[in-house]
Amino acid sequence: MTDQTPPGKRAATRDMILDQAYAMACQDGLEGLSIGSLALAVGMSKSGVFAHFGSREDLQLAVLESGSRRFMAQVLLPALQQPRGVMRLRSMIERWCEWGYTYQRGCVLLSAASEYDGRDGALHDNVVRMQAGWRGELEKAIGIARLEGQLRSDTEAGQLAFEIYALMLGLHHDAGLFGFDQARKRTAKAVDRLLASYTP
Amino acid sequence: MTDQTPPGKRAATRDMILDQAYAMACQDGLEGLSIGSLALAVGMSKSGVFAHFGSREDLQLAVLESGSRRFMAQVLLPALQQPRGVMRLRSMIERWCEWGYTYQRGCVLLSAASEYDGRDGALHDNVVRMQAGWRGELEKAIGIARLEGQLRSDTEAGQLAFEIYALMLGLHHDAGLFGFDQARKRTAKAVDRLLASYTP
Repeated sequence: MTDQTPPGKRAATRDMILDQAYAMACQDGLEGLSIGSLALAVGMSKSGVFAHFGSREDLQLAVLESGSRRFMAQVLLPALQQPRGVMRLRSMIERWCEWGYTYQRGCVLLSAASEYDGRDGALHDNVVRMQAGWRGELEKAIGIARLEGQLRSDTEAGQLAFEIYALMLGLHHDAGLFGFDQARKRTAKAVDRLLASYTP
Repeated sequence: MTDQTPPGKRAATRDMILDQAYAMACQDGLEGLSIGSLALAVGMSKSGVFAHFGSREDLQLAVLESGSRRFMAQVLLPALQQPRGVMRLRSMIERWCEWGYTYQRGCVLLSAASEYDGRDGALHDNVVRMQAGWRGELEKAIGIARLEGQLRSDTEAGQLAFEIYALMLGLHHDAGLFGFDQARKRTAKAVDRLLASYTP
């Protein structure tokens, strides 16, 4: 593909490579991504792939960004259509569980958190930014539910968001090791108990 | 090192290689282990390392086993010295948090869970066995606390063990991304709330 390739075709090729890279990273993490295997999988040369992503790190950043966009489209945006308050918060959790079902064999965003938590660099910074952003969305929904009087007035949004997040980590962990169905049931029970304990 | 090497020296060399491999796996996971880098780090030839561990997978299994032994020695065994019941359960959680502090930049056992949850093979089977074993210890401690009347008689051990486990995942996750101290405080609050909700 040269500089004369029409921009639409170029963007479509980039998307196709990115989709393949995303699928591979779901399985092996962003650190498992190699330009060589990716080129092989999409039937291109390595330099063909490099023409779209200047470096392996650029590719990893693009895959991470793509995961974040998918998560927002599948989890956050539909939940924002729900009425404000606990119903919206529950919708976020419900869709997040579906996300966990879809990616029970590996979630790029979650594995990136453990791949880059102890490192420095652009990938680490982007992982922290995305995770903080999502936690902020949860805290916002919790804050609204508290304002609406559906959660206790002394509810600490950061604390409850942490506890919800922990349960979703538990879901993913148990689903991967012991099967999704039991993990899903335990998560649902735990979420009910947790929200009940914060209800006035 | 040849077959004439005294058994004690041979075992000491193996332990030294294993300690180095464990330290490297804490940083990069078991999948990040390479015999080449390990040999370089311990100042041996690759064949010297292979003389102690027949294959990369054997080495990975030995590192996993070593992590499990360390965890049991640091977390479970001291907790078993505590009086039966909630005090023992709390001691397990407390020491587990200390483990989380020690390995906040990477825990072999936890990263192995995400590395091998979606795969087949001996590493996957061993990860599941170890995780199920530790969950079983938690359930046992919960069952005793219930028998002693310190937890509600309708407490489901598997459910509460899941919820405790989820909080420890939350601790590790938040410690890595946002810092240990805040994560530790939130975990402590959440554990108190959780155990209170199961107290008769």
